[in-house]
Amino acid sequence: MKNQNIFDNKIFFDSYMNLRDGANFNDLLEQPAMRALLPDISGMDILDIGCGFGANCLEFSYKAHSVTGIDISQRMLETAEKINCGGNIKYMKLSMEDLSCLPSGSYDLVYSSLAFHYAIDFDRLIASCFRILKKGGTLLFSQENPITTASKNTDNRYVKDEEGNVFFKIADYQSEGERHVKWFVDDVIHQHRKVSTIITTLCKNGFIIQECAEPKPAKEAVKILKGLSRDLIKPSFIIFKAKKGE
Amino acid sequence: MKNQNIFDNKIFFDSYMNLRDGANFNDLLEQPAMRALLPDISGMDILDIGCGFGANCLEFSYKAHSVTGIDISQRMLETAEKINCGGNIKYMKLSMEDLSCLPSGSYDLVYSSLAFHYAIDFDRLIASCFRILKKGGTLLFSQENPITTASKNTDNRYVKDEEGNVFFKIADYQSEGERHVKWFVDDVIHQHRKVSTIITTLCKNGFIIQECAEPKPAKEAVKILKGLSRDLIKPSFIIFKAKKGE
Repeated sequence: MKNQNIFDNKIFFDSYMNLRDGANFNDLLEQPAMRALLPDISGMDILDIGCGFGANCLEFSYKAHSVTGIDISQRMLETAEKINCGGNIKYMKLSMEDLSCLPSGSYDLVYSSLAFHYAIDFDRLIASCFRILKKGGTLLFSQENPITTASKNTDNRYVKDEEGNVFFKIADYQSEGERHVKWFVDDVIHQHRKVSTIITTLCKNGFIIQECAEPKPAKEAVKILKGLSRDLIKPSFIIFKAKKGE
Repeated sequence: MKNQNIFDNKIFFDSYMNLRDGANFNDLLEQPAMRALLPDISGMDILDIGCGFGANCLEFSYKAHSVTGIDISQRMLETAEKINCGGNIKYMKLSMEDLSCLPSGSYDLVYSSLAFHYAIDFDRLIASCFRILKKGGTLLFSQENPITTASKNTDNRYVKDEEGNVFFKIADYQSEGERHVKWFVDDVIHQHRKVSTIITTLCKNGFIIQECAEPKPAKEAVKILKGLSRDLIKPSFIIFKAKKGE
């Protein structure tokens, strides 16, 4: 079973590109936190899993030795080749569910922004990341926070009490698996995993966790995008930085 | 500032001992998960932080070389000395907020059940645990899950939708600090910390995280204590097992 390729759906793709063009959660909340955890990438060989339209690949390419961007969406990769190409960047159509064609011990950094919550076999994905990293290499990834993915029912997720305080509704946390979400189109499929499962999977596969972050929106960011204030109530994202020991 | 000594409040103490006497979350949910993560303790020197009335100390003492139980509650320690004493067990009145009197490199296992959410200076506590452990030693602790401690307002924490589905209300996750909870008596003070803060604090202090668990109630346990079914909605506890490298 492969994960869903929602980014090749035209309505979804157009809506997504439109979203990324304006003020959004990625640029104001997730990306600043990812950049803060990025090691010095000078001279590195980097793999970007779920690279999308390649914005990060281009940024990495100025300092890195080589950048490989992989994605399952043909539309995304075509856009990447057009607007974010460079001599040391290579784009490949490849699913994170099967990285077996990538050689062992090849990358100094495996990077992934908001893709791992689509992975069905997380253990296999993490084992692959470990295998393809060089010794001492770093895995840095962000994904949806398990608090956000927990509930199966995603209708009216925020409730107000009598005093007007806003709460986020959580359920089904202990039940891992598919979550069907409406995001531009009906039935985008995310995978819910407990935070303890993520941590234990990293450790059992040999990774040494170095840092974890649940980005909190800056005041200035909330002024630009009011919806970000919801992230004071509960976190949308979680980020892990882990190392393959020497 | 020292953490609150609620266990020396007589009403609280009596209610707590009464609770622990019947079917409860500790014995049916948290303790089985802690036991599953316990290393082989044969011949170990063990420190139990927040040992309470010493039930775990007695259990450890049958296999361990030595067991030290510390707590800030005089009432708890007096009970421990009476009902859970043994030749290789020592009880000490000591706060986890200041472990400076304990010698460095002394313990194979630092264990703590449901006490760390009372610690005000978590970084200091974790640094102390690292210092007093022998090389290769293990830190195993459980505490309230950050999902549970997040909201400042703890009135009517569960809501039902029109179809009768039960949700848990979460707020204030990004705002760490004191939480005032009613538990037998008014105003028991817990400390809310994000899961990312717990993880990063462990890593920055030199610990290698080995495993994390958010115990899910077994069907048989829910039959004994119906309230445990709430832990399918959201986890009450989180457990970390971490190692001091060789």
